[in-house]
Amino acid sequence: MTAPSLLHASRADDLMRAHDLDALVATSAENVTYASEFWSLSQWLRRRPQVYVVLPRDRIAEAVLIAPTNALDLLASTEPTWISDIRRYGASNFAHSPAPDSPAHAEHARVSTLLALPQQAGPATALAAALRDKGLDEGRIGIDESGMSPACLEELRQQLPKAAIVPADLHFRTIRAVKTPAEIDRLRRAAQITERAVEACFAEARAGVSERELATIFLNSLIRQDARPALTVLGGGPRSALPAAQPGERRLSPGDVLRLDAGCYYRNYRSDISRCAVLGTPSDRLRTAYGAILAGQQAGIEAIRPGVRADEVFAAAMRAARAGGLPGYHRTHVGHGIGIEGYDVPNLAEGDRTVLEEGMVLCVETPYYELGWAGIQVEDTVVVRAHGAETLMRTPRHLRVLG
Amino acid sequence: MTAPSLLHASRADDLMRAHDLDALVATSAENVTYASEFWSLSQWLRRRPQVYVVLPRDRIAEAVLIAPTNALDLLASTEPTWISDIRRYGASNFAHSPAPDSPAHAEHARVSTLLALPQQAGPATALAAALRDKGLDEGRIGIDESGMSPACLEELRQQLPKAAIVPADLHFRTIRAVKTPAEIDRLRRAAQITERAVEACFAEARAGVSERELATIFLNSLIRQDARPALTVLGGGPRSALPAAQPGERRLSPGDVLRLDAGCYYRNYRSDISRCAVLGTPSDRLRTAYGAILAGQQAGIEAIRPGVRADEVFAAAMRAARAGGLPGYHRTHVGHGIGIEGYDVPNLAEGDRTVLEEGMVLCVETPYYELGWAGIQVEDTVVVRAHGAETLMRTPRHLRVLG
Repeated sequence: MTAPSLLHASRADDLMRAHDLDALVATSAENVTYASEFWSLSQWLRRRPQVYVVLPRDRIAEAVLIAPTNALDLLASTEPTWISDIRRYGASNFAHSPAPDSPAHAEHARVSTLLALPQQAGPATALAAALRDKGLDEGRIGIDESGMSPACLEELRQQLPKAAIVPADLHFRTIRAVKTPAEIDRLRRAAQITERAVEACFAEARAGVSERELATIFLNSLIRQDARPALTVLGGGPRSALPAAQPGERRLSPGDVLRLDAGCYYRNYRSDISRCAVLGTPSDRLRTAYGAILAGQQAGIEAIRPGVRADEVFAAAMRAARAGGLPGYHRTHVGHGIGIEGYDVPNLAEGDRTVLEEGMVLCVETPYYELGWAGIQVEDTVVVRAHGAETLMRTPRHLRVLG
Repeated sequence: MTAPSLLHASRADDLMRAHDLDALVATSAENVTYASEFWSLSQWLRRRPQVYVVLPRDRIAEAVLIAPTNALDLLASTEPTWISDIRRYGASNFAHSPAPDSPAHAEHARVSTLLALPQQAGPATALAAALRDKGLDEGRIGIDESGMSPACLEELRQQLPKAAIVPADLHFRTIRAVKTPAEIDRLRRAAQITERAVEACFAEARAGVSERELATIFLNSLIRQDARPALTVLGGGPRSALPAAQPGERRLSPGDVLRLDAGCYYRNYRSDISRCAVLGTPSDRLRTAYGAILAGQQAGIEAIRPGVRADEVFAAAMRAARAGGLPGYHRTHVGHGIGIEGYDVPNLAEGDRTVLEEGMVLCVETPYYELGWAGIQVEDTVVVRAHGAETLMRTPRHLRVLG
């Protein structure tokens, strides 16, 4: 692989031109993986490890990846990044013996090749050198400020006194708002893995089963599908009304609503979907309320197309939910972008005037939480296509009625 | 609960006195949970949500917790925080109907009580008001800079022009280095859950089984024990030599080393342990190398006691591993603190002159990665007690020889 598949390179170039930037530098776990496809484990697990990707304007093919020596083994697996210019910093913990020339040792050979790269003193020094090599030491550099340590930023400023360094976390969010086909593939898989896990959970939901037992079924299904847990909201009966209900010891009773609002990580991409079930025949009140939120979500989905503003989708969904049976329906948002982060641009909310573009991926949701009663929700993930929304999901959106 | 059990309050007070601070403010997911016991889901899932805990010096009982209205349901579960002074900001998405006065609706009643609190305009406004209420608006305030958004920090400075605001992320790390009994309980559970999952994995490890299949066994065991995955390094044969080996399609063969370096989240606390197995009779070379790293780890553990420096533990472990059969053994560290983060203070490394204190919890590890051959490792979690290290673990540390 020699070209980015997650990074929307032309969108990054356009943004740099629009903001008069000569380069962008990714520094957070999400932005580094987005820009390089490299999954820097330690950076995903904690905040401090410094990994950077330099994206020079109009020559993104010349991108540079800067990583600690102790992460090189992750760069030795098959196609971990499309970037060929890799710089390493920090000491090595590897011992060497003559590696057998066998396919089983191909990763070892690749680690050895990477270890032969010169060792830079530290991340800021390596970044300054990379920018200098690209002729950008007097340039205007947008640095994603969310992952760079204050000490490294200060050191970079000292090493490149003529560079103009500006924050770029929001710029990365803007670029990431429109997804590439490779991103959409991962998001589709993530959504479908999650809905299968939800169905596995519904298949075992009956009176007497605890929320915690159902959560174990849900999570084990994610694991078996090679995904990892992210959000697991699961509440039965009155607990369905708690927006972030964490699965507890409560056991389901006849008549209970069961609400899941859940997601996973699949190849670093996220899902966030919701489905509800009821144990036994739904009451009229539940039927009406569910009909209203489904009508709201449907109207939101139908409003989606390129050129429409995020707040217009919000208004359409609110109007339909109110007209559909919940006249007092009130929400701050009815969805959000999703990608390598769970909340990407835009927010389907009042006041968000982002214009929808082809390739945006959106979660559309109309939850209803009534204290003293129950909570219901339906949430689907869709792609903005030229003629409207295309769902990434396979399961129906109606309220499940369980034995 | 009306007093903190995770937060080491006297240590926080001592540190504030030593650094002439009138209050500390926690802002990151880890520091907020540590200070308040409140698990703010959205903050743990992503960076942007603003949740704060104000800890006034010498009157930590008067602490204030500031949270978004949409997180109040998580504050309505049983004993989510010891803090009674809760402030909320942002709009509510709740509808209300008269709540039945039943135990099943106790959480609803508590949400209603919290919703009756005045709604503050935003997080910075709420924080400024809390500091003013505590008479701290001209004080010297240490703010954990890692979780506060730049915009909120700027707004706070404008609202409290006479306060001196200094960074405090490192101060929180210093306080957190010595664990309370409640923290040690969670760390013990996390370590033991993980070792049980490792043993479950070893029980199924045989020629023909893939790394991915073993990882599924490991992860499902974590889930069943009410833990969540964190780090899962699992490599067989040559892949055991890759420090961060991610479980892949490779199947085990006779003679393979199988190395796990793995951890979980249990009630937000972390584990990080390592065990190795071999399929069939170990070679002399493997026996010798494993004996050396075990001797190194043992020497490190034996060196641990209050008053000893972190770099002295490092030196003891290195010396013993070299004397024990790996004369060229080389490492940058032989372990680290662990707590609500996977890497807490201190680092058992050359140059870390931190003096060990009773109550520190340390992972002690002596991995050996040899390209061209294999990787082996042993890692245990111990508490620093008055007379030496007490292990938190139950399983033996020898190389497992599997059928």
